[in-house]
Amino acid sequence: MIVDTLIEKIEQMKNPTAVGLDTAFDYLPDDMRAGVGDLRGAADAIVAFNKAIVDKVADIVPCVKVQIAYYEMYGVDGLRAFAETVRYAKEKGLIVITDAKRNDIGATAECYAKTFLGETTVGEAKFNAFDSDFLTVNAYLGSDGIKPFLGWMQKRDKGIFVLVKTSNPSGAELQDQKLENGKTVYEYMGSLVEKWGEDSVGKYGYSAVGAVVGATHPVQAEILRREMPHTFFLIPGYGAQGGTADDLKVCFDASGRGGIVNSSRGILCAYRKEAYARLRFDDAARQACIDMKEDLSRAIFG
Amino acid sequence: MIVDTLIEKIEQMKNPTAVGLDTAFDYLPDDMRAGVGDLRGAADAIVAFNKAIVDKVADIVPCVKVQIAYYEMYGVDGLRAFAETVRYAKEKGLIVITDAKRNDIGATAECYAKTFLGETTVGEAKFNAFDSDFLTVNAYLGSDGIKPFLGWMQKRDKGIFVLVKTSNPSGAELQDQKLENGKTVYEYMGSLVEKWGEDSVGKYGYSAVGAVVGATHPVQAEILRREMPHTFFLIPGYGAQGGTADDLKVCFDASGRGGIVNSSRGILCAYRKEAYARLRFDDAARQACIDMKEDLSRAIFG
Repeated sequence: MIVDTLIEKIEQMKNPTAVGLDTAFDYLPDDMRAGVGDLRGAADAIVAFNKAIVDKVADIVPCVKVQIAYYEMYGVDGLRAFAETVRYAKEKGLIVITDAKRNDIGATAECYAKTFLGETTVGEAKFNAFDSDFLTVNAYLGSDGIKPFLGWMQKRDKGIFVLVKTSNPSGAELQDQKLENGKTVYEYMGSLVEKWGEDSVGKYGYSAVGAVVGATHPVQAEILRREMPHTFFLIPGYGAQGGTADDLKVCFDASGRGGIVNSSRGILCAYRKEAYARLRFDDAARQACIDMKEDLSRAIFG
Repeated sequence: MIVDTLIEKIEQMKNPTAVGLDTAFDYLPDDMRAGVGDLRGAADAIVAFNKAIVDKVADIVPCVKVQIAYYEMYGVDGLRAFAETVRYAKEKGLIVITDAKRNDIGATAECYAKTFLGETTVGEAKFNAFDSDFLTVNAYLGSDGIKPFLGWMQKRDKGIFVLVKTSNPSGAELQDQKLENGKTVYEYMGSLVEKWGEDSVGKYGYSAVGAVVGATHPVQAEILRREMPHTFFLIPGYGAQGGTADDLKVCFDASGRGGIVNSSRGILCAYRKEAYARLRFDDAARQACIDMKEDLSRAIFG
């Protein structure tokens, strides 16, 4: 089961890090941007940048999270770059989370599920449009918008992460609202996620239906870890957004399992920081991953 | 302001209909599917089908809603078909709603806003990736995920529709939950939408920040129409999903303004219904639009 594979890769590498390939063209070094003036050129440069990063981190991180928004903005060329990035990362043995936060009614959610986790049928032929290991989803539309993903998860050993408590400040506007029963919206969403995951719990006690829980909200994360014992967390918000290793350690259980921490700009743009300025962008990214691993290990594994 | 333009087109055509171009390859007539066996072929056939529909309805409907999920599942080729469909519909004078339900934290929402409503910058050049008039968005992440869209709306005369009360049965799981103050989640979301729209109210009293309110929930829609007097509704759920013209008339104000009703399969696949079986698919779609217009007019305008 994919969640078991992810847990095993994390333990083998002693590194619960997902490198976020949220690659805006502006993040690239000057020499990679020079002379590029159209969407196709930007997309090609982004692929080259991503491949260099993947080559330098594939032996020390288990996973990448590819944020599709950063590719969509370069149009059809950008989505080709997205597909190439996902394919390359998988070839190099990385687990790929597509961060797309897709959501819709059942018939349309089925299309999204086919796109990222399943198969598209044309006549007698079947295709994998943007084949990923995990997909992030938004469950504002409830169970019948989630079920199509669960179906393809079972068929093709895939997983999802459902938004529960997001890392951004205004996530609280809806998510921290209290319901009549005294529970918050994020706790209620957490209870739905636990239920959706019941049939896909792996050998380590965690389900392939995960949750997004921000590193920036340690009090809420601690509540959710307790209330969602079978749910693996995808934890954004470390670094650039302000979450620290000490903030997010509450997302992990007593054996140090239970989550994976994403960092995007902190790794992709490490070469712009004074600490890494003497390194090439890809070497800087690798060193930033090593430093992040040490920071997380200290906090989580003690 | 785009919401005024939409209202004026609706009144001029006396037709509050958005044709939903949720075009799965399987919806195409046999002869358009014959011999097609790959994603590129499927995408090309979908474009040909959509263009034929657009040609037949552009003089009687103000608007199309293009559901991006149905294109994403054909991969990069599918997104090229999406871009061509949007461009062609705009060329033919139709207002285009992209139904993508995008959502993320501020920096990433900015990417989505650039993609569908704004501009992507590469060096000194600017591009419109998938330029639409309106975009549907999901506000589970609160204000800072919405603000980037509001910024581009102002700059480029665009609009959004925020999910409030969706048409699917399980939308109720979260959306109908009662908060401590006695209001439901969908009413609370509605109050946020009214606030987000404050600075973009047009000459008819409706804002360019609209709401998605399903035709399948007349009781809730009536509450929302009262509590959201400045919010224009995008109303899915008519026809195939079970919503009737009499169900959705509560979404409209006393002057017959306030919403636009989407129908997708009911129009695209009209040629498969007995009533239209003697017509070609595009003529069947036109006739289904005429019949839908009469049905809506009777209920809304009396």
